[in-house]
Amino acid sequence: MSELKNDRLLRALLRQPVDVTPVWMMRQAGRYLPEYRATREKAGDFMSLCRSPELACEVTLQPLERFPLDAAILFSDILTVPDAMGLGLYFEEGEGPRFERSVRDRAAVKALPVPDPEQELRYVMDAVRTIRRELHGRVPLIGFSGSPWTLATYMVEGGSTKNFALAKSMMFDQPELMHALLDKLARAVTAYLNAQIAAGAQAVMIFDTWGGTLTPEDYREFSLAYMQRIVEGLTRESEGRQVPVILFTKGGGQWLEPMAETGADALGLDWTTDIGEARRRVGDRVALQGNLDPCVLYASPGAIRRAVGRVLEHYGKGTGHVFNLGHGIHPTIDPDHAAAMIDAVHELSRPYHS
Amino acid sequence: MSELKNDRLLRALLRQPVDVTPVWMMRQAGRYLPEYRATREKAGDFMSLCRSPELACEVTLQPLERFPLDAAILFSDILTVPDAMGLGLYFEEGEGPRFERSVRDRAAVKALPVPDPEQELRYVMDAVRTIRRELHGRVPLIGFSGSPWTLATYMVEGGSTKNFALAKSMMFDQPELMHALLDKLARAVTAYLNAQIAAGAQAVMIFDTWGGTLTPEDYREFSLAYMQRIVEGLTRESEGRQVPVILFTKGGGQWLEPMAETGADALGLDWTTDIGEARRRVGDRVALQGNLDPCVLYASPGAIRRAVGRVLEHYGKGTGHVFNLGHGIHPTIDPDHAAAMIDAVHELSRPYHS
Repeated sequence: MSELKNDRLLRALLRQPVDVTPVWMMRQAGRYLPEYRATREKAGDFMSLCRSPELACEVTLQPLERFPLDAAILFSDILTVPDAMGLGLYFEEGEGPRFERSVRDRAAVKALPVPDPEQELRYVMDAVRTIRRELHGRVPLIGFSGSPWTLATYMVEGGSTKNFALAKSMMFDQPELMHALLDKLARAVTAYLNAQIAAGAQAVMIFDTWGGTLTPEDYREFSLAYMQRIVEGLTRESEGRQVPVILFTKGGGQWLEPMAETGADALGLDWTTDIGEARRRVGDRVALQGNLDPCVLYASPGAIRRAVGRVLEHYGKGTGHVFNLGHGIHPTIDPDHAAAMIDAVHELSRPYHS
Repeated sequence: MSELKNDRLLRALLRQPVDVTPVWMMRQAGRYLPEYRATREKAGDFMSLCRSPELACEVTLQPLERFPLDAAILFSDILTVPDAMGLGLYFEEGEGPRFERSVRDRAAVKALPVPDPEQELRYVMDAVRTIRRELHGRVPLIGFSGSPWTLATYMVEGGSTKNFALAKSMMFDQPELMHALLDKLARAVTAYLNAQIAAGAQAVMIFDTWGGTLTPEDYREFSLAYMQRIVEGLTRESEGRQVPVILFTKGGGQWLEPMAETGADALGLDWTTDIGEARRRVGDRVALQGNLDPCVLYASPGAIRRAVGRVLEHYGKGTGHVFNLGHGIHPTIDPDHAAAMIDAVHELSRPYHS
């Protein structure tokens, strides 16, 4: 493997000194980029893009060609694991993800296999290996997975949902069945992330998109507990370096303290929490990643620069901050506005690291 | 006016002793009730239902016929104020609300009138008077309005939005223009709520549905500041009784302390905050309203009862709690499940008030 030329991300995630604050964007390989839309067109549908290691590599690298980002993130979908469990993931144009088969009773949970990542998810591991090769050590590669709770909601509902009626009904009425499903998912996700690390992922992130729809009690029991189990089961060193783990629960700003106790190295923050306040709350236990309101990128470059400056100022001096949006970049953002944000992070953060 | 026979709600909102915890449900007059759907059918469209004082009264009273609720809430829409400002509110089947005209520049903001509630919003005041008459003092009537920020998002976007691209662009790029719009809305909402109180509303609630999409800083500047101004401008006594004011920001669990400083009597809580923790944070400054996960009503009556018990237990002994869902009741809930919740609140809360 090539020597890593820019290790700011890994250093900041481990709260080691850096020259400037590293920056990347959730969904940085995505629809806001015309070159992404062109590759997607070439691939046909979304899952064909995910399943082709060459095309997944191509779109993963696209934002790095445009912007001086400090990380690449594997291009894939959070629902590859349930798909590999045999649920039949598909996307209908203009709709969210759907499964051919949902998981709503004991027999269905019991029948779910824990996939072998190098078999059923081989295309993801091949994408990781291809991207690492093509990156030539420019920046580190982040691997990722959905959280067990987040995956479970799609599996029980059979796709996207507004109300979580079926997933939450199972949780309230048959908690032991939901636990059986989450247990299986935690084992599958642990194996999946460890395989990504073995294939070359240099940091991993767990996306808990729907943990924030739970009460604090249910969050701890049905989402956080399983993320903690994954964190405990991960390979934390590879190629002679630590592999940092980032936990991100959208809407989880009220639960940073228990999240920091999982053993994760860093927490992702959405924009509804002040990052300075968050830093005071978690102390030196974890690094923080975030947390610009993604809508700031709709504004003018001048307003973007001011908003970046405020996030940096609120975080304050010293390492432990990875700049990011508080959620994925919206598909209608002008790429030049993303550039304005990234440049502002590097320029304005220097004094905080001197 | 008839003597108020059940004043639990008003007493709990003012943190005065009660025999059992009062309970009502956001959107209790709504689509989950077959009798509501029948009246709605009779009215034709949704706005005709809102504009008819007799039909609005009919649906307001429907849930009280079924359930031993401790409050009625005016049936209306949060967008009546911008409609009265001349924006032309309409609803398309299966879509969210839309305006014929949006408000996106200085001229449009300047042209907005502050409506006279007894003129352009007379149908709302007539509904309040009709409902009060027909309630015969059974329970108090809650009036309400959307918050300035929430109304502004619809007015700038021209309807519902997922990303708040236009409203937030205006906020970031032309903050003084957004402030001019919010200032006008704060004056309109103050007049609107005071007119509801004069017409017979015995408590009022401000719904800040979209304040939770802001950063903490933007929330204080663009949402909370204007709600505070409204609270300061409200008539706080009518018919010889205090008129309590409830503030509810969905997703605002991180900002309870500044919300409690506005002078409101009570704060609405969604289900992502533990109500016991919230009580410790706000102390005796305000009462709390909430906060069952509305999805609990999808579960079995046994699970509903247990979940109600947990909210009551977390709040603990003493007054200052109005039981509610953490958000509006979902349209596909079985009314018997709502009944199970309401009965459980009255039965299980008695020991906390002895």
